[in-house]
Amino acid sequence: MNWEKNVRRVEPYVAGEQPKAEDVIKLNTNECPYPPAPAVRRIAENLDCDKLRLYPDMNAEKLVNALAEYYHVSPAQVFVGVGSDDVLAMAFMTFFNGEQPILFPDITYSFYDVWAELLRIPYKRCPLDENFCIKKEDYLAPNGGIIIPNPNAPTGVLEDISMFEEIASANPDSVVIVDEAYVDFGGRSMIPLVDKYDNLMVVQTFSKSRAMAGMRIGFAIANEKMIGYLKDVKFSFNSYTMNMPAIEMGTAAVLDDAYFKEIVGKIIKTREWTKEQLGRLGFAFSDSQSNFLFVTHKSAPAKEIFLALKENNIYVRYWNKPRIDNYLRITIGTDEQMEKLVAFLEDYLKERKND
Amino acid sequence: MNWEKNVRRVEPYVAGEQPKAEDVIKLNTNECPYPPAPAVRRIAENLDCDKLRLYPDMNAEKLVNALAEYYHVSPAQVFVGVGSDDVLAMAFMTFFNGEQPILFPDITYSFYDVWAELLRIPYKRCPLDENFCIKKEDYLAPNGGIIIPNPNAPTGVLEDISMFEEIASANPDSVVIVDEAYVDFGGRSMIPLVDKYDNLMVVQTFSKSRAMAGMRIGFAIANEKMIGYLKDVKFSFNSYTMNMPAIEMGTAAVLDDAYFKEIVGKIIKTREWTKEQLGRLGFAFSDSQSNFLFVTHKSAPAKEIFLALKENNIYVRYWNKPRIDNYLRITIGTDEQMEKLVAFLEDYLKERKND
Repeated sequence: MNWEKNVRRVEPYVAGEQPKAEDVIKLNTNECPYPPAPAVRRIAENLDCDKLRLYPDMNAEKLVNALAEYYHVSPAQVFVGVGSDDVLAMAFMTFFNGEQPILFPDITYSFYDVWAELLRIPYKRCPLDENFCIKKEDYLAPNGGIIIPNPNAPTGVLEDISMFEEIASANPDSVVIVDEAYVDFGGRSMIPLVDKYDNLMVVQTFSKSRAMAGMRIGFAIANEKMIGYLKDVKFSFNSYTMNMPAIEMGTAAVLDDAYFKEIVGKIIKTREWTKEQLGRLGFAFSDSQSNFLFVTHKSAPAKEIFLALKENNIYVRYWNKPRIDNYLRITIGTDEQMEKLVAFLEDYLKERKND
Repeated sequence: MNWEKNVRRVEPYVAGEQPKAEDVIKLNTNECPYPPAPAVRRIAENLDCDKLRLYPDMNAEKLVNALAEYYHVSPAQVFVGVGSDDVLAMAFMTFFNGEQPILFPDITYSFYDVWAELLRIPYKRCPLDENFCIKKEDYLAPNGGIIIPNPNAPTGVLEDISMFEEIASANPDSVVIVDEAYVDFGGRSMIPLVDKYDNLMVVQTFSKSRAMAGMRIGFAIANEKMIGYLKDVKFSFNSYTMNMPAIEMGTAAVLDDAYFKEIVGKIIKTREWTKEQLGRLGFAFSDSQSNFLFVTHKSAPAKEIFLALKENNIYVRYWNKPRIDNYLRITIGTDEQMEKLVAFLEDYLKERKND
């Protein structure tokens, strides 16, 4: 087909498997094991469906205002999108247009290089050290922008905020994005610092700690000027991204802070229990402050464990990639799910030893 | 701020006003005056909100399958997005990467040049003739792609399918997109021809004839290969664009064909009545086959009418742009709304004459 010569050819991002069977223990895409806040359901039940005939509020004011109030910033400092992936894609398009490569860790969210390839942005992966920690010096070289998750994924390693402050300070010519998808599970957000560093943007999501992956809501917080540029690009791409139910149900989720804190607390408790158990079984891992553990076993290869788990309807995430091909990323589920996981692993490792 | 030098600066698309007052007669953004199908409300009421904790089906299979069945194509020929704007933005990014300019009419959907500017795609506007009709010859010149709405907006002019067939045939090197946002109101869709022309893509939306602007659903139909390329780009931008309620409620809308036909029939009837009335009042307009009329008055300037209407809480759309600055685009509302519009205009024009 002749028209193919003008096609943008890309290697798309590969998301974790979404098994359709109902009886699966799904610990492979870092979803929340608990349902969204009860208020979210009430909004759905009473949704004014007649209003769906109208365009939604293109500024998603209700949701933006709720987030602004929650995070003590002005509404003009908040940008919302269809998941943090939408927010990040827009941010790459808006801010990463320099000649110099953008910088991100070699082991990190695997969408960053996909966006860079799609948008033809030069990029450089900076190797984490042997403990999967950021090497700050790498981010002091000339660059066209910086993006780092904190805690990082899939490693779960949380870095101190002071390191990001140093990086932001040292790079006044670059936008520095801190991807805080997992920050609610034990990290400290940099949102209070967006007024101090005019080149700092913080991105978060409703998909993990707010239990709304199915609703597709993410947001960015930065200074008004930066958010203004991001909006200009967004309104040049798709004016009405947030549908009416997302605006209404997302707002309800933000307003129920007690429920949010309750489920996050439960996940943290389960995570700490899981760490103890997996440690006992011979797994090593960094001290994850997210809703997942990134583990390697002293004797059993990760790929074998991954396949054995899958055969038993327990899904975790495995990447056949350099440096991490002997690791598994395990999402923290409910206590019951983690007990089943640990029981299975205990048996599996015992049998394996006896073989 | 130093980082500003790498910012993509753009002039965003300006959507029609969305007045917040409740008592407004809103005829300015081509929304449907009727609510979505009753089945859509039932889905909302019974939404399994617990499932919102999980990522939605990234392939939106349920919705894709419903559309494939409805339009007699295979599911692999269907692409869905967050409104047809999302679908079109992705299509621009995927297919319009040549050296030659892409072509579209000078009077048309005002997002086309915004996408071209955003994505730095060279483009050329081809002037419509004095009756706002496409001049076919313009689209036989070398180009990097073609996009034309049918019926065109904001003119409402419907072109014969044979013209698009000629354009597609004559441009095997280019992807030809026919934007059928308004086709359900009296046009003939080119969907049955996507297997005949391997460079043809048809785009439609749920925002007009399916009364779901607030839900943000659009779709493209083409051959499998073209849809495959579009998906590769989409999955390099945002894997999970369609949220769970959009998939579920959109599917319900497609399945209720009787309701769809009923509301479209009502809008067409109201449109024809409105044509008669406006003709009687001295307005001229092309024979619109969409859910709006694009009108000019023999003596009263469009801008004055626009402001007078607005002052009386009747919103229509006016553009202060070359060639169309003496026109108004009036969405077809309910019978009652159009009666009020006509009554107001009748009085207004009478008074104006007497002044």
